[in-house]
Amino acid sequence: MGMIGGSLEAFIGAVHRRGSQLDGEIELVCGAFSSSAEKSKATGAALYLNPSRVYGSYEEMILKEKALPEGERMDFVSIVTPNHLHFPTAKMALENGFHVVCDKPATLNLAEAKELKKVIDASGLIFALTHNYTGYPMIKEAKHLVDSGELGEIRKVIVEYPQGWLIDLVEATGQKQAAWRTDPARCGAAGAVGDIGTHAENLAKYITGLHIDELCADLTIFVDGRQLDDDGNILIHYNNGARGVLHCSQICNGEENDLNIRVYGSKAGIVWHQMDPNTLIIKSRDGGSRTIRTNVGNLSAQAQAHTRQPAGHPEGYVETFANIYRNFAFALRARWEGKDQDPLYDFPGIDEGINGMAFIENVVRSSRDNTNKWTKFEI
Amino acid sequence: MGMIGGSLEAFIGAVHRRGSQLDGEIELVCGAFSSSAEKSKATGAALYLNPSRVYGSYEEMILKEKALPEGERMDFVSIVTPNHLHFPTAKMALENGFHVVCDKPATLNLAEAKELKKVIDASGLIFALTHNYTGYPMIKEAKHLVDSGELGEIRKVIVEYPQGWLIDLVEATGQKQAAWRTDPARCGAAGAVGDIGTHAENLAKYITGLHIDELCADLTIFVDGRQLDDDGNILIHYNNGARGVLHCSQICNGEENDLNIRVYGSKAGIVWHQMDPNTLIIKSRDGGSRTIRTNVGNLSAQAQAHTRQPAGHPEGYVETFANIYRNFAFALRARWEGKDQDPLYDFPGIDEGINGMAFIENVVRSSRDNTNKWTKFEI
Amino acid sequence: MGMIGGSLEAFIGAVHRRGSQLDGEIELVCGAFSSSAEKSKATGAALYLNPSRVYGSYEEMILKEKALPEGERMDFVSIVTPNHLHFPTAKMALENGFHVVCDKPATLNLAEAKELKKVIDASGLIFALTHNYTGYPMIKEAKHLVDSGELGEIRKVIVEYPQGWLIDLVEATGQKQAAWRTDPARCGAAGAVGDIGTHAENLAKYITGLHIDELCADLTIFVDGRQLDDDGNILIHYNNGARGVLHCSQICNGEENDLNIRVYGSKAGIVWHQMDPNTLIIKSRDGGSRTIRTNVGNLSAQAQAHTRQPAGHPEGYVETFANIYRNFAFALRARWEGKDQDPLYDFPGIDEGINGMAFIENVVRSSRDNTNKWTKFEI
Amino acid sequence: MGMIGGSLEAFIGAVHRRGSQLDGEIELVCGAFSSSAEKSKATGAALYLNPSRVYGSYEEMILKEKALPEGERMDFVSIVTPNHLHFPTAKMALENGFHVVCDKPATLNLAEAKELKKVIDASGLIFALTHNYTGYPMIKEAKHLVDSGELGEIRKVIVEYPQGWLIDLVEATGQKQAAWRTDPARCGAAGAVGDIGTHAENLAKYITGLHIDELCADLTIFVDGRQLDDDGNILIHYNNGARGVLHCSQICNGEENDLNIRVYGSKAGIVWHQMDPNTLIIKSRDGGSRTIRTNVGNLSAQAQAHTRQPAGHPEGYVETFANIYRNFAFALRARWEGKDQDPLYDFPGIDEGINGMAFIENVVRSSRDNTNKWTKFEI
Repeated sequence: MGMIGGSLEAFIGAVHRRGSQLDGEIELVCGAFSSSAEKSKATGAALYLNPSRVYGSYEEMILKEKALPEGERMDFVSIVTPNHLHFPTAKMALENGFHVVCDKPATLNLAEAKELKKVIDASGLIFALTHNYTGYPMIKEAKHLVDSGELGEIRKVIVEYPQGWLIDLVEATGQKQAAWRTDPARCGAAGAVGDIGTHAENLAKYITGLHIDELCADLTIFVDGRQLDDDGNILIHYNNGARGVLHCSQICNGEENDLNIRVYGSKAGIVWHQMDPNTLIIKSRDGGSRTIRTNVGNLSAQAQAHTRQPAGHPEGYVETFANIYRNFAFALRARWEGKDQDPLYDFPGIDEGINGMAFIENVVRSSRDNTNKWTKFEI
Repeated sequence: MGMIGGSLEAFIGAVHRRGSQLDGEIELVCGAFSSSAEKSKATGAALYLNPSRVYGSYEEMILKEKALPEGERMDFVSIVTPNHLHFPTAKMALENGFHVVCDKPATLNLAEAKELKKVIDASGLIFALTHNYTGYPMIKEAKHLVDSGELGEIRKVIVEYPQGWLIDLVEATGQKQAAWRTDPARCGAAGAVGDIGTHAENLAKYITGLHIDELCADLTIFVDGRQLDDDGNILIHYNNGARGVLHCSQICNGEENDLNIRVYGSKAGIVWHQMDPNTLIIKSRDGGSRTIRTNVGNLSAQAQAHTRQPAGHPEGYVETFANIYRNFAFALRARWEGKDQDPLYDFPGIDEGINGMAFIENVVRSSRDNTNKWTKFEI
Repeated sequence: MGMIGGSLEAFIGAVHRRGSQLDGEIELVCGAFSSSAEKSKATGAALYLNPSRVYGSYEEMILKEKALPEGERMDFVSIVTPNHLHFPTAKMALENGFHVVCDKPATLNLAEAKELKKVIDASGLIFALTHNYTGYPMIKEAKHLVDSGELGEIRKVIVEYPQGWLIDLVEATGQKQAAWRTDPARCGAAGAVGDIGTHAENLAKYITGLHIDELCADLTIFVDGRQLDDDGNILIHYNNGARGVLHCSQICNGEENDLNIRVYGSKAGIVWHQMDPNTLIIKSRDGGSRTIRTNVGNLSAQAQAHTRQPAGHPEGYVETFANIYRNFAFALRARWEGKDQDPLYDFPGIDEGINGMAFIENVVRSSRDNTNKWTKFEI
Repeated sequence: MGMIGGSLEAFIGAVHRRGSQLDGEIELVCGAFSSSAEKSKATGAALYLNPSRVYGSYEEMILKEKALPEGERMDFVSIVTPNHLHFPTAKMALENGFHVVCDKPATLNLAEAKELKKVIDASGLIFALTHNYTGYPMIKEAKHLVDSGELGEIRKVIVEYPQGWLIDLVEATGQKQAAWRTDPARCGAAGAVGDIGTHAENLAKYITGLHIDELCADLTIFVDGRQLDDDGNILIHYNNGARGVLHCSQICNGEENDLNIRVYGSKAGIVWHQMDPNTLIIKSRDGGSRTIRTNVGNLSAQAQAHTRQPAGHPEGYVETFANIYRNFAFALRARWEGKDQDPLYDFPGIDEGINGMAFIENVVRSSRDNTNKWTKFEI
């Protein structure tokens, strides 16, 4: 694996490195960690990389690695840059024969995402998008419960993602995470909705399989001087008639990272909180409430396949990245061995990326439209 | 106290009786418990009432009690009928000199509520409305925290009221609670929004003091054959620029009575769940999270005044009614003694009733309007 | 009902009054609320009692009430004095023909409790002891689960009662609750073990039906100047071979009133916390975990008979007293109607009282014995 | 790193590999994964190791690795065998110049542990013991709170470790984990107490710094046919006069891995649950309750140094191993660079191992002694 972005001061680069290393299936062999060659070099050194494979730019990395003999060069790139660089880096990597794992969102806008899909299709290579939260065992179980009809017909979805870390103008303090996430040029058309709202939407879609038919959005910038929304509230009509409420915020003071979802069907409802990820509740009016826990009792093959520890040994955030990287590695190996990819080891790809970008654009469009109540979801 | 409605098979009558009796300040002396004289008589007997003061109709009760010598007749009526009878019973009681405690919502529609206010004002009597959930000690504390500026400027309110008991057509089974609550003639223009959405709105308003400036509502009937909404999702713009999300439902399968609220301000946020009512969380990004508990540490005078037990001895639903009844009794006594009402012992009245009816009508209007996104809140 | 003790400044008197009044089955008609005639009078006035039935001593009350015509005099006494007065008041009441409800523990020591049983038996009257915590609906359900074999053979019981309110020498401040509870003359041989440890033991015995065969106790006085234990830790061997751990404390800083129990059997285990009383967890290695909630789904007749509200409307501490008082009232009425007492409406009596006093004495004996590890439980 | 034990079917081997790999500081280069050469080879292949460095026995590995040139050979061994092999493998590794990370408990018995300390001292090498649960950030914070006096004088410690996975005779089914853990020859003198009780004791000692002065233990074998205790309940007298209750069990049906601790001091108390590891509660009677969370607000340097993710991104079990391995790696690097070990990056060593073995032996001795109540803790 070669990494693009992810210098020492970035948060998400370390997450990807840890996720990819956890299972011993993937080795980091090279990187272009920063647009500053010096920072890139320092990062490579801290990671014990061969200095000759620490590059000053992603272009250099892709071309020089391509020039190495097969078996010596990196097999794929991991892209962990700010959003605006996802498209050019992924495109160049794919066009030079390297598979790609890319941090979400896929690209800076929907047009790029669609274009990226064409590049991927043309390359015939594998592309994974790290919508990591669907990698939790209990989310696999939740999807399994819906798919197997345990919830009946889905009627209501409430998905939330409150955070509080942008309660004031953090971006003005030079904090790097905040700076690019609130800058339209590097982040795209939406702030909170793009950064975390897309995770919420992706989670709901993954579990329920429902598509958004139309939506009504209300985005707000609360903090003076901020350029992108820091709060978003959205009503949703799903394609099957179900109703949805999705809200996300980065000004919910005191909230950490409280992605959570409730799905109610004609037969039962489920509840899950990301900050208590190994617990899934299923309940119904007449049947009471059952607590499903990672690796307790008889779980689905899907949940088991994404579990590493015995019951009661907490699995967390890093394992969600590890699940994507491991499944991606399984897909690569299957290809090398001429086998089909095993659907048990799923991971998000460009279709999820396109959907996410479309979600952002439809939400922004709806929010700006104060006359029409409902905005048809268009991709 | 004389009771109108609340025969043995009704749920809310017993709640009012227990709430009014808990503190020994109020005695039930007469009743017209049902439109069926027989049922009324049976209820009176079960309650050990003097048979001569168990009446066949509310008109009879009001007139006959009025005819009793002062000191022997009831002091006030408690109205616990279905919604459509609130107005005529309250009006007649007031016009005959009896104070009134009335179950919520105040009336069948906004026009009646406004008319009732005129009747109350003309009578000079005391009227209490049992929006009981604001009677919890931790809600008094929450309001105190907002009022004293601990949360800073309020930016976001999320208030929810999911229930699941109407997941199927319960009203077709003859279940009395479900039957009148889903019948427009007895319940009014809204189902879930009227029954429980108004509690949610009242709770948010009580704690924050904010008014709704405009809203965007999406009401749905999920269960075939039902006449009124069983699910409602509402986006709110508050008068100070804060954003709100209010949703209520009676088809959230497996949910019991999960009224809950989160209020986020520039300085801190608070979280409260009705099903764990003695716990209030206050938190902020930098200050971490503090758990405030009924009768633990230094609480506000408001919280203390509505607490009966030492820490860790759970106070529940019945105490919320008891707090309204006791405070109402205090108000009566103050009047008899020629004193001012002590604002510490507050209770909801007709203004809250009018606001609640306006909420219902604005929400219904917004939901029917699929072109204009925002509906101005009109009273 | 006539009350002995329970002046305005006492905590437990108000609890008993509220519990007895909640259901409208019982009316307070007289009282000897304090050994000070003045305090008694003031309390009676605050409770709207007829001044002629507010007495200066319990002896006076019992004799004067007895002298009233049947139908006018009180039917039973409620004893809410400090422990040392339980025996003489109960004895005199019983010997003069009055049934008794008595706060726990039954008496000052085991000998008195045995003597009291003789008095009760001789009188043929009804005696209830307010070991209230077994009155929660979920405790009825827990007992039902054990009785019906859902847990299999019981192997382990962990019952805890940590409080923190005596973390310093509160009794030296004149606080009345603390003063008598830490005074051997008024409280008996044990402090925390007598006040709350007996509740823990009673709860375990009620749910499991197990008897203590032998125990090993370690009592400690942590606060300088205190005369009775404020902390107790006890290992238990039950008669069926099950093992138990019981600990109680009043110096667990920050704990409110956290009575809780876990019972593990060969088939399943259960968990219950008094501070979240409407929730009962049942779980097993292979079957996962189910959350049982008051009035949700199909509960036992025992749980239903002690539930007042629909699901999700919290029932709390006052209802546990109400359940004892109501069941006691049902027992009285059954007697008056010549019927058998319905076992569904159970309440603790003198046998529980004797067991509790024996528990205290055996624990104190064991704690003082630092050579013999195990102390046989003797009654 | 070279691994001894930890073939594919072992649970703990994979945990150690993941923990050691997470941060990219340590590389697995060789292994003797099983006493079966075939299994060892298969494991090595699955881990992409150079087949020439996959050995058939630990003796072979140590000797052949030693024969490699410095810089090519492994730096240290990771021992993840059943308990009876800890001593001989560690001893041989140390005597041949390799540092050691060893799974707990240190050895099969106390005598071996003391002997091992001599070997370590003689070698001058670094020895780490994976008492991993003290590696959680919130445990670092808990220790910091105690050390900085926030709790005042410690008075009571309740530490529990209930599990339920051995509720029946799992060892008879051939389940490998159960088989050696219930076999005295491979596991030592205690079952549950050795396997998990030692974790509980270690946790209490790490946080409080208290030593056990004397104890009173009650061990039981509940499952017919089992050879070692599956349940243990222990009363403790600490050296400062504090009282302790420690219980552990593997027959608490339905419990997963619920290590938890409560520590109460004169100023405040703390509560922590391993299954919700990123939450620590601190509370006091007058100050109420504060929830401390990983990476929220101002935490101690100790907590921060063991945290990898932003607030609300759950860190779990694997990170506890990673913290020990990373700190061990830091210690190695400090030595290579001629620097002192930074006490911020602490990890358990042979002293914790000796203490753990002494705990087991004292507990077993006390349990067998049914006459003397208190057993002096001897090392």
